[in-house]
Amino acid sequence: MSPTITAFKESPDRGAGLARDMPVRWAFEEVGQPYDVRLVAFTAMKEPEHRTWHPFRQIPTYEDSDLTLFESGAIVFHIAERHSGLLPDEANSRARAITWMFAALNTMEPPIVNREVAIYLESNETWHEQRLRVVENRIRNRLSELSSRLGKADWLEEVFTAGDLLMVQVLRRLNGSGILEEYPNLAAYVARGEARPAFKRAFAAQLAVFKAASNT
Amino acid sequence: MSPTITAFKESPDRGAGLARDMPVRWAFEEVGQPYDVRLVAFTAMKEPEHRTWHPFRQIPTYEDSDLTLFESGAIVFHIAERHSGLLPDEANSRARAITWMFAALNTMEPPIVNREVAIYLESNETWHEQRLRVVENRIRNRLSELSSRLGKADWLEEVFTAGDLLMVQVLRRLNGSGILEEYPNLAAYVARGEARPAFKRAFAAQLAVFKAASNT
Repeated sequence: MSPTITAFKESPDRGAGLARDMPVRWAFEEVGQPYDVRLVAFTAMKEPEHRTWHPFRQIPTYEDSDLTLFESGAIVFHIAERHSGLLPDEANSRARAITWMFAALNTMEPPIVNREVAIYLESNETWHEQRLRVVENRIRNRLSELSSRLGKADWLEEVFTAGDLLMVQVLRRLNGSGILEEYPNLAAYVARGEARPAFKRAFAAQLAVFKAASNT
Repeated sequence: MSPTITAFKESPDRGAGLARDMPVRWAFEEVGQPYDVRLVAFTAMKEPEHRTWHPFRQIPTYEDSDLTLFESGAIVFHIAERHSGLLPDEANSRARAITWMFAALNTMEPPIVNREVAIYLESNETWHEQRLRVVENRIRNRLSELSSRLGKADWLEEVFTAGDLLMVQVLRRLNGSGILEEYPNLAAYVARGEARPAFKRAFAAQLAVFKAASNT
């Protein structure tokens, strides 16, 4: 039996592939593991019942026989550990790839999510514009460091890893902001990730869900 | 040879044990692995040279023969994978413990760090008070979910794991705010973590560094 994940029935990002089922779908596609999806309405997800699967009542969750997991980063890691293709075999390379997974989620993502929160939840606040400028400069600091580190390489380590998968997915949240384009090697890095066949299959799958929901 | 980590020569938290070498020291102590520390001045850390070790020029780093890692979460995981005591042996329990590691750093920590940023970097902004209220309510939402999940248990899974280590360390950032005390089971959970002999040794070690630096 294939593992089952949860995803939004109608994602607030309207199929842009920024919801957190996307990196999990992408990881499944990279390793060639089929998966099932249980769609959850945004409002249903916020019901106390959803806590059984996810203590913070979010998506995605991962169910495989008697194991239930949550947190997209943890699920991607679980997939990467159980299949080849997302973590190098050599111990040191593997440790470095895992480091980039944590760096994507704990160093790079927070200021980028803060920008979204500023735009979606704080745009009516009197301090919105000032706050947005502060947040965007914090993002630029991080991007500048990452750009220096990546240099002219294709991926953060010698080969594509789960660290790149999460990093590209985090940077995709800047699509449309114009900020990523200030760092041409990072914009090319994201484009390189989005050009992977596994990414395209995952993106198409989540877009199909949104289109089906918006046609009903 | 023991692994070497970097830490602040004079931590901005004045020995409160909130800098990111603390969870790494704690992990070493839990598994009984001796370690060396290379102290870095805050200003030196920001020099471009520090990028050789840490692309985002922060502490801690981890060096062990030809392997250099950064990101406290990744370093704690590396230690947990190589020693017994921080991750259960049984596969499903291990996966759940890893899930809590990601949850601590990617779901619980961001709003808590935002509160610190609001206090330390934004206190002169006209919008400071309003922003702080918004951020603290986001923290309460997360704490409320975590409190429900923990219930009357001692730890997030059956035994203490690296997931608890990171979660306790993240929640410790609320010390002095009064917010944690609104959730008595979480306050007790943090106290339970701080009472562990390994925590106490790690805390004493980082405090000794601060005291030595402030006496010179």
